Amino acid sequence: MAGNTLGKLFTVTSFGESHGPAIGCIVDGCPPGLALSEADIQPELDRRRPGRSRHTTQRREPDQVRILSGVFEGCTTGTPIGLLIENVDPRSKDYGSIAEQFRPGHADYTYQMKYGLRDYRGGGRSSARETAMRVAAGAIAKKYLRERLGVTVRGYLAQLGPIRIERVLWEAVDENPFFCPDPDKVPELEAYMDALRKEGDSIGARINVVASGVPPGWGEPVFDRLDAELAYALMSINAVKGVEIGDGFRCVEAKGTQFRDELLPEGFLSNHAGGILGGISSGQDILVSIALKPTSSLRLPGRSINVRGEPVTVVTTGRHDPCVGLRATPIAEAMVALVLMDHHLRHRAQNAEVVAGLRPIPAKAP
Amino acid sequence: MAGNTLGKLFTVTSFGESHGPAIGCIVDGCPPGLALSEADIQPELDRRRPGRSRHTTQRREPDQVRILSGVFEGCTTGTPIGLLIENVDPRSKDYGSIAEQFRPGHADYTYQMKYGLRDYRGGGRSSARETAMRVAAGAIAKKYLRERLGVTVRGYLAQLGPIRIERVLWEAVDENPFFCPDPDKVPELEAYMDALRKEGDSIGARINVVASGVPPGWGEPVFDRLDAELAYALMSINAVKGVEIGDGFRCVEAKGTQFRDELLPEGFLSNHAGGILGGISSGQDILVSIALKPTSSLRLPGRSINVRGEPVTVVTTGRHDPCVGLRATPIAEAMVALVLMDHHLRHRAQNAEVVAGLRPIPAKAP
Amino acid sequence: MAGNTLGKLFTVTSFGESHGPAIGCIVDGCPPGLALSEADIQPELDRRRPGRSRHTTQRREPDQVRILSGVFEGCTTGTPIGLLIENVDPRSKDYGSIAEQFRPGHADYTYQMKYGLRDYRGGGRSSARETAMRVAAGAIAKKYLRERLGVTVRGYLAQLGPIRIERVLWEAVDENPFFCPDPDKVPELEAYMDALRKEGDSIGARINVVASGVPPGWGEPVFDRLDAELAYALMSINAVKGVEIGDGFRCVEAKGTQFRDELLPEGFLSNHAGGILGGISSGQDILVSIALKPTSSLRLPGRSINVRGEPVTVVTTGRHDPCVGLRATPIAEAMVALVLMDHHLRHRAQNAEVVAGLRPIPAKAP
Amino acid sequence: MAGNTLGKLFTVTSFGESHGPAIGCIVDGCPPGLALSEADIQPELDRRRPGRSRHTTQRREPDQVRILSGVFEGCTTGTPIGLLIENVDPRSKDYGSIAEQFRPGHADYTYQMKYGLRDYRGGGRSSARETAMRVAAGAIAKKYLRERLGVTVRGYLAQLGPIRIERVLWEAVDENPFFCPDPDKVPELEAYMDALRKEGDSIGARINVVASGVPPGWGEPVFDRLDAELAYALMSINAVKGVEIGDGFRCVEAKGTQFRDELLPEGFLSNHAGGILGGISSGQDILVSIALKPTSSLRLPGRSINVRGEPVTVVTTGRHDPCVGLRATPIAEAMVALVLMDHHLRHRAQNAEVVAGLRPIPAKAP
Repeated sequence: MAGNTLGKLFTVTSFGESHGPAIGCIVDGCPPGLALSEADIQPELDRRRPGRSRHTTQRREPDQVRILSGVFEGCTTGTPIGLLIENVDPRSKDYGSIAEQFRPGHADYTYQMKYGLRDYRGGGRSSARETAMRVAAGAIAKKYLRERLGVTVRGYLAQLGPIRIERVLWEAVDENPFFCPDPDKVPELEAYMDALRKEGDSIGARINVVASGVPPGWGEPVFDRLDAELAYALMSINAVKGVEIGDGFRCVEAKGTQFRDELLPEGFLSNHAGGILGGISSGQDILVSIALKPTSSLRLPGRSINVRGEPVTVVTTGRHDPCVGLRATPIAEAMVALVLMDHHLRHRAQNAEVVAGLRPIPAKAP
Repeated sequence: MAGNTLGKLFTVTSFGESHGPAIGCIVDGCPPGLALSEADIQPELDRRRPGRSRHTTQRREPDQVRILSGVFEGCTTGTPIGLLIENVDPRSKDYGSIAEQFRPGHADYTYQMKYGLRDYRGGGRSSARETAMRVAAGAIAKKYLRERLGVTVRGYLAQLGPIRIERVLWEAVDENPFFCPDPDKVPELEAYMDALRKEGDSIGARINVVASGVPPGWGEPVFDRLDAELAYALMSINAVKGVEIGDGFRCVEAKGTQFRDELLPEGFLSNHAGGILGGISSGQDILVSIALKPTSSLRLPGRSINVRGEPVTVVTTGRHDPCVGLRATPIAEAMVALVLMDHHLRHRAQNAEVVAGLRPIPAKAP
Repeated sequence: MAGNTLGKLFTVTSFGESHGPAIGCIVDGCPPGLALSEADIQPELDRRRPGRSRHTTQRREPDQVRILSGVFEGCTTGTPIGLLIENVDPRSKDYGSIAEQFRPGHADYTYQMKYGLRDYRGGGRSSARETAMRVAAGAIAKKYLRERLGVTVRGYLAQLGPIRIERVLWEAVDENPFFCPDPDKVPELEAYMDALRKEGDSIGARINVVASGVPPGWGEPVFDRLDAELAYALMSINAVKGVEIGDGFRCVEAKGTQFRDELLPEGFLSNHAGGILGGISSGQDILVSIALKPTSSLRLPGRSINVRGEPVTVVTTGRHDPCVGLRATPIAEAMVALVLMDHHLRHRAQNAEVVAGLRPIPAKAP
Repeated sequence: MAGNTLGKLFTVTSFGESHGPAIGCIVDGCPPGLALSEADIQPELDRRRPGRSRHTTQRREPDQVRILSGVFEGCTTGTPIGLLIENVDPRSKDYGSIAEQFRPGHADYTYQMKYGLRDYRGGGRSSARETAMRVAAGAIAKKYLRERLGVTVRGYLAQLGPIRIERVLWEAVDENPFFCPDPDKVPELEAYMDALRKEGDSIGARINVVASGVPPGWGEPVFDRLDAELAYALMSINAVKGVEIGDGFRCVEAKGTQFRDELLPEGFLSNHAGGILGGISSGQDILVSIALKPTSSLRLPGRSINVRGEPVTVVTTGRHDPCVGLRATPIAEAMVALVLMDHHLRHRAQNAEVVAGLRPIPAKAP
């Protein structure tokens, strides 16, 4: 209830602070018999890891994950999977001013108001470090979805500040530190980020995620709709301020004749809905898009108050990402995979008989 | 798990189909001692009720709610509150073609794929009729929030197709059938809707909701963030395709120096974050915005298939709303109120000691 | 969280007070395609109904159940099933003394302490009337278990005060008002109850329930063990003070060589464990036994206090059951069926692949 | 849903196998500001630890617990508390025969049936080793209950096979390896256990737990009753086959006039109900009792089958406890403390206003 568990049938419960001894999570509900080792999880962590380029925080964390349970002779057993990453580079320095100040745009103030005290070292639990466990857990969901069900979940940077990226070459995404799907845009991104770093400022971003191969029938009709749970999971990522499914906010100006996706025996003719109708997957690609705010950790001074309510000027000196969106693609993919995995299990719990005899219509007209 | 329950401490579990005998819900977890009668709920239902103007469906439903339990001598007792609305105007007509066809843009196809069968009468459970119970339950949450905590939750129409409404006069909202906060825009909306109805088409809309008076500390830091749960609750409303908190997608192009809300001893200097930092309320106004797609029930023919996979042309002849956004304001308010109520109880469960001694900083600089 | 929901995948959420307008529940998660009508539920309610013999309360409630949703053309649709029973015989009399007094052995005092107020009419929510909805929901679970999986759940009166019933003839159980499985014991029970009624006192009872045909694999290994959830569900019935699985408390004096159930290729040689090993069903009969306390509603005066803390003498004058155990058999069966149904869905959610290929060992040696 | 989480507001999610690298848990929902360090948890683990006397398994586990998160500068922060114990003495030996055989009375067979495979080393997840994390988490609950609310939770051995222990001297409990509250009975227990060990057999036991100082109002009225959740939590302990509240099964033969606890202005006159009325604490001592079966790991051969369904004879050669009841007292206390802690938070979530002004009646007449 304190909100550190995600999912209902495939659950992730996480713990850990930025500068504590370790972070970890428990993945419960994974079906037995899935081949699994650290080697399946580590590559996803490495994609999210800071310090991969000069454009992200220079914190050096190997983020080496250990599987502590739930796997025997290389296979999941159906019991909970304990995952652990020791914190090895917390830079135990003097936290004097951070301890007393509320950095503007950060959770310092709200944690203090909520709990009456806080672990101020590196943002404590509000640090983006927490997302490492999402990625680790998501790697398990992704593997199951891909190997057992043929479902792939892939994301990319769709916009960085004023730079919009519209061409999507999937093979390009992992070839640059921005998860940019258009290699021609990479130099522009590099230049923009270099200028920004000099300036000392930060910038927002947009990430898109596409899930392909999802069969029709996942999601619940009323509250726990697939789109509602995707919105929840994605909005729970640090810095996310908006979530869209399919056309998203463009639907405000659309007419019904334009928006409704017509259907032929060969499949749907369009996908404005983003693969979800009435909260349930339609068999088309699931399309989601998120907005990430510019990070608030800036070298440029900002006004705030301290714990005694006195005015202070805050300057962030430590390591930080000038664009949190740059490392958010693996996190967004993980969240989508975790929601899909949960809904797969929920669907087959109630509708096992239907699942067995399902003959869905092709997802896309030729 | 089948997804008909919302909330964790203040829960709403709903049932009912558009053309079944009745719809209803159980509100569990309401604190005892709240003065409550049908007269507190009915006005909210009347705001949502169809047939209030020529611009909404002409289905005539009195939507008369009965409280069946949980209230004694005019006060809540702490036991579950059963609410019931009998369906009195289902127009039991011939459903022949709807029974066999999948209306494009509707949940017909996905329900059939999920369950292997469906109640096709009026959309069954996927009908917007289900939202009446959200409004009824939300009325209880709203009352508690207002009377016990001084929290108000108010929404308005922010955009209808191409018409943007930017001036907000709260007292105007309930004076017109659009929940439009700018009375000068009403004639334009009237004209637009009249033209649309003649055309036989439908249009999207944007609704904004503002919650004022929320104290700092509501929301959980990691998964069950206040913004994440708002996104979930709002995205679970029929036809919603996007959710924003605060500046939402505008943050993509914003710089950190612009976006971070600075703080003085007198309060915050801006509210780009929409009243939530690190998933927890900051004491500022909570600002959310949603996009609603144009309804897919159109007189204009659309291509689809029937249950045997054969191509058909679908024309919707019955009563329908040409803009589902027109009646969505009370629903959106209800969802925000339900999430806030739940998080109020969650916060005081864990942090009762802090709640007792909380001295928050003023929410707004003078 | 206020505790009116049972189950995780097959859930029952109930509402209603003894003397309010109605009681009801929502059954969520039922698989689609189950033939269901009121006629499947009413007979179970009639078994529990008061007034069937002179040995139970003379309250006359037809307990006529209505299905309000979730069923279409005679089949469940997978959406929530709303069930409603109107209260028709609440005898709205003067509650003066009950309103002010805490009846000894009742929940009057604890409700007042918990909520600060209470609905005192007929015990309000603490009335045994609430169990009608358990029986109604249980009837759906029982039907699914029996028709789809060949699982039967049957109970009987095993002891009434000093009278132990050891011979079990299943066909006799529904032939007498005691659910006594040994017809030869019925006259003795009649005589005992008649004497008790004259005396004005009440007596305890023991009920046994047997579930046959449960396949191996239901239940979770650590907290949500099948036995743990059975204990929870059964202890939640009014007046239950003890729960046993298999040999129960007899195991305290047993040696390991006696207790462990040996296994041959043809099946288990004994069933001391009651069909559950490590929290998971073994394929043998599930055996549970519960103790029900004597009702505290007596004509014989008892000492207590009133809401002002003053001493009072309480005499119960209304209708009451001198042995609540007499009507508890259908309730206990319902609770067992609901837990089994929930665990069936939970098992197939996680282990669908195993379920498909399961080749269990025979449950009983020939 | 896979059942490795206990509680709703104060939750424990555990992982780990007997012979894996480590076991651990996440305690979520602990209020902030509680002084906490490993030194608060270790003594409880040491009480449960094997190898304290010749009467328990000789496995040598230091069971050294580490707090990985949720504590800062010696205080809980309100974020999840990660606890970890590395497995240091798993004796990685040849598991050949255990791998292929189903030990009678163990979970080997049911795990295999449920998951299709199992970690057979030392019983994997079904090992009593899992209970170490319950004790660790329970230590936190116990500390909060004691320091903040004055609630104590204490248990003792009430029966070992034929030896009943009726005199309770609390100060004696921790002075002998049996948790026996009557020092005069210790020599008899020693002799019994020595004889049993020579025999190669095992024996059952009964444990009682008493919670004192619980205020009235904890527990929910219908499903999540305090007694129901205690039954669930206690029945989830390895080897438990029965749970009683208050008089338990003795109520079957009791009359209402004997059983109902009368009430004077000075307090209750008796406590047959065990401190719970209508599922809610009454302010009296909470009394529970559990039956533990004799362990099935015996040197004496037993008949069973192997994974191919062939008959085998099983002899347990490793380290084992001849009476699992001997080490169960700290586990039972932990489970009671965890349930109470959860219900304290649940009660104050819904009834904060009542809690603030509560004036309960004295729990016991003088």
